[in-house]
Amino acid sequence: TTASSPAQGSVQLAVIPGDGIGQEVTPEALKVLEVAAPSGVKFEQTRYDLGAERYLATGEVLPDSVLGEIRRHDAILLGAVGGKPNDPNLPPGILERGLLLRLRFELDHYVNLRPSRIFPGVTSPLSEAVLKGEEVDFVVVREGTEGPYTGNGGALRVGTPAEVATEVSVNTAYGVERVVRDAFARAQKRPRKKLTLVHKTNVLVHAGSVWWRLTQQVAAEHPDVTVDYMHIDAAMIHMTTNPQRFDVIVTDNLFGDIITDLAAAITGGIGLAASGNVNPDRTAPSMFEPVHGSAPDIAGQQKADPTAAILSTALLLDHLGHPEAAATVERAVLADLSERAEAGDTAPRRTSEVGDAIAARVAG
Amino acid sequence: TTASSPAQGSVQLAVIPGDGIGQEVTPEALKVLEVAAPSGVKFEQTRYDLGAERYLATGEVLPDSVLGEIRRHDAILLGAVGGKPNDPNLPPGILERGLLLRLRFELDHYVNLRPSRIFPGVTSPLSEAVLKGEEVDFVVVREGTEGPYTGNGGALRVGTPAEVATEVSVNTAYGVERVVRDAFARAQKRPRKKLTLVHKTNVLVHAGSVWWRLTQQVAAEHPDVTVDYMHIDAAMIHMTTNPQRFDVIVTDNLFGDIITDLAAAITGGIGLAASGNVNPDRTAPSMFEPVHGSAPDIAGQQKADPTAAILSTALLLDHLGHPEAAATVERAVLADLSERAEAGDTAPRRTSEVGDAIAARVAG
Ligand SMILES: CC(C)[C@H](C(=O)O)[C@@H](O)C(=O)O
Ligand SMILES: CC(C)[C@H](C(=O)O)[C@@H](O)C(=O)O
Repeated sequence: TTASSPAQGSVQLAVIPGDGIGQEVTPEALKVLEVAAPSGVKFEQTRYDLGAERYLATGEVLPDSVLGEIRRHDAILLGAVGGKPNDPNLPPGILERGLLLRLRFELDHYVNLRPSRIFPGVTSPLSEAVLKGEEVDFVVVREGTEGPYTGNGGALRVGTPAEVATEVSVNTAYGVERVVRDAFARAQKRPRKKLTLVHKTNVLVHAGSVWWRLTQQVAAEHPDVTVDYMHIDAAMIHMTTNPQRFDVIVTDNLFGDIITDLAAAITGGIGLAASGNVNPDRTAPSMFEPVHGSAPDIAGQQKADPTAAILSTALLLDHLGHPEAAATVERAVLADLSERAEAGDTAPRRTSEVGDAIAARVAG
Repeated sequence: TTASSPAQGSVQLAVIPGDGIGQEVTPEALKVLEVAAPSGVKFEQTRYDLGAERYLATGEVLPDSVLGEIRRHDAILLGAVGGKPNDPNLPPGILERGLLLRLRFELDHYVNLRPSRIFPGVTSPLSEAVLKGEEVDFVVVREGTEGPYTGNGGALRVGTPAEVATEVSVNTAYGVERVVRDAFARAQKRPRKKLTLVHKTNVLVHAGSVWWRLTQQVAAEHPDVTVDYMHIDAAMIHMTTNPQRFDVIVTDNLFGDIITDLAAAITGGIGLAASGNVNPDRTAPSMFEPVHGSAPDIAGQQKADPTAAILSTALLLDHLGHPEAAATVERAVLADLSERAEAGDTAPRRTSEVGDAIAARVAG
């Protein structure tokens, strides 16, 4: 497969189920992917056991050789990574920085794509008075390779009263311009053609200035896209009182992390929120994963909703040049959700039941 | 007035109405403060014209001599600061960094106190299914003098494709411990005695580590306080699906900025959210201000709700050692809100009408 043509023949897929419910939702996603694959396209899977379990057993997080192998695939499907909270053998950051963020940084996933939408039949925590039956359907384009997530910074005199710890947010014209361009391209393809830059330019003046200027600059090349700006704190208010106003949001790595969890929450969709860590230049495989974590508290009980993982395969199919197959998966999910809602069926389903139901719709 | 005894006799109050609706809500807050003052206490006001208007007219933001004068007061009441959005003569950050943050930093306001509560009769954007008629009543203790707000960082090759801009979050054991201690002291005085640290320890590992360690350390001295930890992204979800769970939240400057706007939003209270920039050591005057901004779009029309500014005077009274006067103001606000709600009265009120109504209740 190459950058310009859709994946044909055999597609090499690296699969990282990870920990907890990652192990349960990933098989369902693969089940759906298999039936959704366009004819002539075959997903050949290589499974990589990475995550808390491997780290606790071997001390390995992401060996260079494994990263090298993963790099040679066409795409990556990831379930969820993370051990038990407060496990003393698993200091915070080991897996996040060493595995998840390392993959995103090394494979240059500079676009972290997170669509948000209130699906029919799904209950939002927001009141009817806020939602007014209107459509909530936006996408966050979160920068994935710089900002406060670089790991730059450090600590001095750790554990003493004189300790000082810094975190350095690094923002380059190179890094900001490319993600802003991607966001504009996406806005241009959407009916409302609207882009909102979210930042905190009034306090983080250096970083804010480069984000603001480059957004204005790229905006000048896209006169058909309406552009506005919102501080991250104000975005909290708009997101909970008028989420309909958003179409495409572009923002940095940390603000994007925060706002996409809020977006998932207000669309009732923490079990439905899909994401893609996309390398739009296709110099390395992109990675698709649900926004949710490994949820150790419900792991192994077939209680997890695999819908977010399944919707992540739709993003994967779209990225690989199969928009129709992607749309089929999305429609199947929609039908699954809305028919259950219409039938008033709120009985909990096993993880595999949901996967079976959606796969059957895709196949049918 | 001294650190240990309540303010008696004449209290020197620096008043900064600021811009936009700041000019309208401040007189109402002063109206209430005057009638709420305990007998024997007289607020002597000095008014300082600072903000967008002064800057645009004179180029002055906060002259050192003015800061010196303000410093000699017992407390500061601030309305709101900020000019028209996108005014080319008012680059982002000038007033925020030069006035608001400079006051907070120079006067060592290391506790930014932001109570959140759903007042009777106030409509939350959250659904009834989420709220279940339960009480939402928590307070965010936001660090005010370090973290990503220091202004450390800078930019190189600005305006070129090689631009790089950094923002440095500075976190010291000194700065973290003192705000964590303040938060524990507040938790201890509340019925539920619960404290939640909010951070992003899994990504911002250096800063996260000092916050986490010091919270654990101070927790050991407060066995009666229940302590938990939540990532900032997860906090978005809990805040919109189960805000009842929060009691005291302690967090850094940037996360605190974000979460307090969300808190104000979900409690229906962006017009009701009060805040104090507190120097608990009383080495300089503390500053009280509504969370809302100057809202240039509705300024000068007597449309702004002065309740947040009025509730800020309750925080001011409490800080100065007059908890009963503070409680009287709060009760008056509560009565005002709930009686209107019971009467089904949703007609808009003029800013001064609200101030008059609450002042009358305090006086009566
Ligand atoms: C687990 C963590 C490193 C990650 C992030 O902060 O990006 C997660 O919260 C996410 O949003 O994918
Ligand atoms: C205006 C701005 C500097 C300020 C902040 O970010 O602290 C405001 O948003 C607030 O929360 O008081």
